[in-house]
Parts: sequence; structure tokens; C-alpha cells
Amino acid sequence: MKPVKVGICGLGTVGGGTFNVLTTNAKNIARRAGREIIVAQIGTRRPNSDCDTRNIPMTSDIFEVAKNPDIDVVVELIGGYEVARELVMTAIEHGKHVVTANKALIAEHGEEIFALAEAKGVSVMYEAGVAGGIPIIKALREGLAANRINWLAGIINGTGNFILTEMRDKGRDFNDVLQEAQQLGYAEADPTFDVEGIDAAHKLTILASIAYGIPLQFARCYTEGISKITQDDVEYAEELGYRIKHLGVSRQTEKGIDLRVHPTLIPEARPIAKVDGVLNAVMVNGNAVGDTLYVGAGAGAGPTASAVVADIIDLARTLEADAAARVNHLAYNEIENEQVLPIEEVETSYYLRIQVQDKTGVLASVATILSERGINIEAIIQKEPKEGEELAQIILLTHRIVEKTMNGAIAAIQALDSTVGDVTRIRVEHLD
Amino acid sequence: MKPVKVGICGLGTVGGGTFNVLTTNAKNIARRAGREIIVAQIGTRRPNSDCDTRNIPMTSDIFEVAKNPDIDVVVELIGGYEVARELVMTAIEHGKHVVTANKALIAEHGEEIFALAEAKGVSVMYEAGVAGGIPIIKALREGLAANRINWLAGIINGTGNFILTEMRDKGRDFNDVLQEAQQLGYAEADPTFDVEGIDAAHKLTILASIAYGIPLQFARCYTEGISKITQDDVEYAEELGYRIKHLGVSRQTEKGIDLRVHPTLIPEARPIAKVDGVLNAVMVNGNAVGDTLYVGAGAGAGPTASAVVADIIDLARTLEADAAARVNHLAYNEIENEQVLPIEEVETSYYLRIQVQDKTGVLASVATILSERGINIEAIIQKEPKEGEELAQIILLTHRIVEKTMNGAIAAIQALDSTVGDVTRIRVEHLD
Repeated sequence: MKPVKVGICGLGTVGGGTFNVLTTNAKNIARRAGREIIVAQIGTRRPNSDCDTRNIPMTSDIFEVAKNPDIDVVVELIGGYEVARELVMTAIEHGKHVVTANKALIAEHGEEIFALAEAKGVSVMYEAGVAGGIPIIKALREGLAANRINWLAGIINGTGNFILTEMRDKGRDFNDVLQEAQQLGYAEADPTFDVEGIDAAHKLTILASIAYGIPLQFARCYTEGISKITQDDVEYAEELGYRIKHLGVSRQTEKGIDLRVHPTLIPEARPIAKVDGVLNAVMVNGNAVGDTLYVGAGAGAGPTASAVVADIIDLARTLEADAAARVNHLAYNEIENEQVLPIEEVETSYYLRIQVQDKTGVLASVATILSERGINIEAIIQKEPKEGEELAQIILLTHRIVEKTMNGAIAAIQALDSTVGDVTRIRVEHLD
Repeated sequence: MKPVKVGICGLGTVGGGTFNVLTTNAKNIARRAGREIIVAQIGTRRPNSDCDTRNIPMTSDIFEVAKNPDIDVVVELIGGYEVARELVMTAIEHGKHVVTANKALIAEHGEEIFALAEAKGVSVMYEAGVAGGIPIIKALREGLAANRINWLAGIINGTGNFILTEMRDKGRDFNDVLQEAQQLGYAEADPTFDVEGIDAAHKLTILASIAYGIPLQFARCYTEGISKITQDDVEYAEELGYRIKHLGVSRQTEKGIDLRVHPTLIPEARPIAKVDGVLNAVMVNGNAVGDTLYVGAGAGAGPTASAVVADIIDLARTLEADAAARVNHLAYNEIENEQVLPIEEVETSYYLRIQVQDKTGVLASVATILSERGINIEAIIQKEPKEGEELAQIILLTHRIVEKTMNGAIAAIQALDSTVGDVTRIRVEHLD
């Protein structure tokens, strides 16, 4: 069979990695795809000193690649929104298949992109967009296709996981670790995307869509970052047998779909609780398979390139076939418009940390507020004031309750004379 | 598109589970496959009271299903070798695609089966054969296709993992736990297949073939069971920071391919070390992606059916396409005849437990034997004789060394006057 001709747009870390994987593993890849996969053109403004591109046609105009009649698959690795969107749409207009690692693009403009791709009979693949080298898109779209997916939960931002791991293992503060992560290149100069959960929300939006066959609804994803997690919370969580992870969680409930990214206590006995450092992990629960867990590197040149090239190989296999031979963009042929629940309607368990004046009756007042609202307490720790301090801490784990009820309880606890400052609330997922 | 017609042969645990998943999740499955998947006939000698088969044509002759001109996909879930082989070959002869959960059949007769399937332009799918509901076959054949796979290691027998977990968590003896596993239905009346590693060897054989693109070589897989693991070994391993797991390990080395199933010490910090009970897990290291880990239920009606039905959906998508649109049976178009190393040529680290008479100079003799052979010691524990006993124990962890050298060292240690009984040797894998 004739070779598949690939055009790479963007030759930074991921673009360079993709070029190098296609080159280094060319023989293995051809043995698997049943045909050669060759880089026919690279569009980039800057060369990449890690890549030997001497025999490859280069252009500084990425749109030239998107329109190149000789090219079968355009690989978008420039990142960002607007230019990437225009590039992908142009490539599709010109009848190219597209492979991208751009989760923001898919989460926010996926519907429009997929619609055009379907009209043109081509596919847009995005395995590299979620959890780097872990083939989680493939697992959800194909490997678990027999299941009704009940829920999924993932550590899908390596920077956040690195920070929480360091805080726990070394007792360090959030800001201190964040600075190191920036120096190591794990975190961007503006860390908002990572630590405030926006990046994870992009990925979770995609995972939920392909898990349940619902539209991409990034705007409805609840997002809460990890910057307020303190060393106290990390230690109390541990004392209670939990770890704090920045989790993306999506459940299919009778009321609608949960879609939320927030710091989360998870039981330390779960294998996912031991996924530390920059690693990513996704747990999926299906009605036939039960729980499955996928762990690996969520970022970096090699892992991301592994996913990009796997998508190219999948396309290579079905290049001459009818579009029906390829998996639907959002896994399902028919997308159902299921409602994403507002966070107030979500039901989960909670960890509460309450600073109180050290006097009698305080715990009783708190317990009364909870019990009046039907909130059951699962565990409780009361800490005496530390040497030289005057405030005691009450730490509670509750059973499952709907968020708006908990909001009312927290407001009432904060209104108590004995309560000092804000109540810390971290959601708890048992993942069982 | 017209529905895909499936014939199920065997309506036991897995066959019944497959029927129920196809029925219960029919709507979701059709949304994903882009067409209905219907059970057109069931071949079984016994009904399954868990299945409502009232509207399904039944036959007691499974070969009738294999030859039924109305059927597109034959699902072989009868197990065993000879009849299963004949059934699968008959179905292929009649132009049917085949889905099977039969790892023994694929590991031992796969070459012959795949050759006929390729001649007939049909596919034989076997995701359910390895690690139950975990889509590990798909991950290796497709998700990680960009990589040169360096090694893989798996807990791929749930019975063995259950036994080792109970031994560790509750300090129980092997035979005691085995009996319970049999009562719980985890282990067969004849547990040889599970505890002696034959079942795991079947699965490992398949994983190695699709990882490296080599022929199925079950006969060359080294197999060692867990029946000799003692409570002492479990405890010493723990003291050294390790867990004992029954692991299938395959490495691509410069000398050839490792293919071996044996009890193995792995560092307790690895997430795979926490995979307990009847769960399965497979770690894969690729040259682009690094390490990835896959965890889930390795057996049972639901998980196995999840994998069987995923294969059917994959087939449904490409039923009208050219065979090139489907993945090659052993992942690669060209199979390379790489050599499987005899166990004597394998290099690994070791745990040794030596019973010795409690007198001076014993440790020096042992250390001399090791150092003369270039075997470096990584850790050592010497245990005084227990109250009322006369023998001390020396426990050693060594650096990596080729097995035949270690065999020589063990023979020399056993020949020492001070050594009592056999030296216990358990291989160690750091999985890094």
C-alpha cells in the first residue's frame, strides 16, 4: 500500500517529539500500520534542534501544510485557540484527516470541528489531548464500548498532582512547590490553567462526552483549584486515611450528569491514591466491567507523541475505508442532550475543617446544625489549640449529601459566634 | 445499516454475561456501533437461568451456529481446546468473524487459527482472553502502537493474586487460602492452571506476541507457581520494602525475549504493588510513552462480557470494510522470529532465603560465594534462631545477574556444611 503522508504543524516539544517517534520507530510503525507513515511536510517558524529534518520539506506557513494536496493527515501541534481552530478547519475543508493534542480546542470548539469533519468524511483524532500517553480516549470510545459508563474520575493535570504530592511527602507549602514546578518546567509562568483546574476541566469535558454520548459542555464544568489547600488539610486527610488529589469527576446520575474539577479526598487504599508526582490516572466504572484504572505520564514529548502517532496509525488503517469504519468523534452516533447538574445539585461526601474558639458546647452546636439538615457524620477529629494559639480545630467527614444542603450548613456554622474565619470544605469521593 | 447478527456458543458464566450485556446495554451499544447488534442464535446444551432467551433461536449443536448462513460473528465461549478449536475453524471456514475469551486456544493454536482467518478475510478477536475487562489487548495493539515496547509485567491471574493478598494481609498459609478460594469459586477444583502459572503463561504468551510482533511461543514460556511461597517470605519481603506478586514478565533484550511467569518481589511504592485481591494489572513500558499501567477485574461474567462485546462492536464497525481496516491479529503485519531466552539466560535481581546453622563465619562464606561470581548484595537481613529453634535465616537481595550464574551460586551455598535444606530463590523486578 502507498505510504501515508503526514504534515506536522508546530515543531515545539510535542511536534518535535512526534517527528522523532515517527522517525525512530518508523520500521515498527510500518509493521503495525501495514504501510509506511512518512512526514511529507513540516510547518513551523522555528527549527527544533532535537529533530533532524534535513530531508523534510519545511515551510513557515502552517496553512500551506493544511492545503498541501499531497498530504493525507494534518497534525496540529501549535496549541492555542484561534489559529489552531482556523488551521484545523482549513485542513478539514481540504479533505485532510486531523490529529491534535489540543484539549482546549476540542473542549471548546469540538462540536463545530466535528460537524465539518463529518460533512467532509474525515476524522479528527485527539487521544493526546487527555492524559498524555495513556490511551484513555481509546479505552472509553472502544475498549469499554459495551458498558453504560456510571462514573469516571481522573488525576488529569500533572502539575497539580506534583504539587499535592510534594505537599504531602515533604510537608511543603503550596506556593513553595509551585515555584519549584515552574522552575522545573512542569508549570507555566501563569499557572492558572493548571492549578485552578481549567486544563483539567477541558480534559474532563472531553472524557464525559465520550463516556456518555453527550455534547461537549465545557462552560458547565464546575472548576475549583488547589491553591487554598493547606498543610493542615493534607495532614488531617492522612490522619483520616485519605489523600487529597485534584480530581476531575463525572457521574451519570438519575438527576443528570456531574461535571466537576476540585480538590478531593480519596481513600488511601485505592490504587489511584498512590499515583504520585506528575503522573496522570483515570478510573472508569462501567455497568459490565466494574472499575478499571489507567495510569501513565500525562505530558511530555514522548508520551504525547505516543498518543499522536497512535492516532495516525489508526487513520492509516482506515484511510481507504468508508467513514463508518472509524469510531465516531464523540464515541456515539447519536448524541443525547443530557443535563449537566449545577454544582448545588451534586451529591457527595465532605471534609470540613472548622476553626473554633476553645470552649464547651462548640462541637454540640456544629453537630446540631448538621443533624437538623440530615447530614450524617462519618468521622470526627477535634484538635486542641496548638501551643500559644487560642483556636481549636474541628475536622469532620460527612456522609453523602446534596451540595446546596451542605452550603446551608456551612453558612450556619460560620454564623456561630464560636466559629472563626471561613469553614474549609473539601469534597470526598470513595470511588467505589 | 442492517444489524450485526451474532451467534453465541456456550451459555455458561461468560456466555450468559455476554448475552445479558448485549441485551441490557443494547441501546447504548447500537448508539456506539452505528447499528444494532442482535443475538441471532445461541448454541448451548444447558439453558442459563440468568438469561431471558425466550425470543432467541436456540440449538444444542454449536456447529449449527458456526455454519448458520445468517450469522456474521460467532462468539466462542465454550472453553477448552479441541472442540473450541474445531468450532472456531468451522466458523472461519464459513466466513464468520470470531470473538473468543479462550486464552489457552489462542496461546496454543493461535497461529493456525489466524492463518485460516487471514486466508478467509475474517478476524478473530480475543480481548477477553487476557485480563478480563481491562482493554489491554487494544492498548497494546493500538493505543501504544507508536512505541517499541521494552517490557511488560502483569498480575494476570486473579486466583493467585487473591491467595498472595490474603497471605500478606492476614498472615494465612497458602493451602488455607487456596481452600477458601475454591469455596468462593475463584479457584478450580484442580487449581494447577492458576497457582502453577499455566493460565498466566497463556496470557503472557499472547501479550508478548502483540507487544513485539513475534510468534506465539507458549511452549517456551518459563512457568513457576506460588505454592512454595511461605509466610516467612511474605514477611521478609515486606521488611525489605517489597510485595510478592505472581507476575508474568516479558522483556525485549539485546540477547532475546524474556517470557516468564514466577513469584516476584516488586517495590511496594509502585502502584501495581497495591493491586490486591482478585484484581488484574498490567504494566507496559514503551520507548516513547514510558510506563503505563492498566488495572481492573480479570475475570467474572460482567468484565469478561465487557471485553467480548467491545470486540463485537469493533467488528460491527468494519464489517463491510476491507480486512486492512482491521488490526492485524498479532498487531504486526510482519512477524519477526525473535528468540525467547531460556530462563538460564535471563537477567534479574534475586531474593534469597538461606537457612543456616547459627555459628560464626556462615555469612562470610555465603558472601564469598556471591562475590566470587560477581553477584552484588543490595540488602541483607540476618535473623537469629526463633525461640526453641536452632536454625538462623539469612535473607539477601542481590543486584541484577544472569540466572545461570545465580544457579551456580545457589548450588555452592547449598553445598556448604552450614546450610540446611534448599535455598529459597524469588526473582525481583523493580519495574523501573
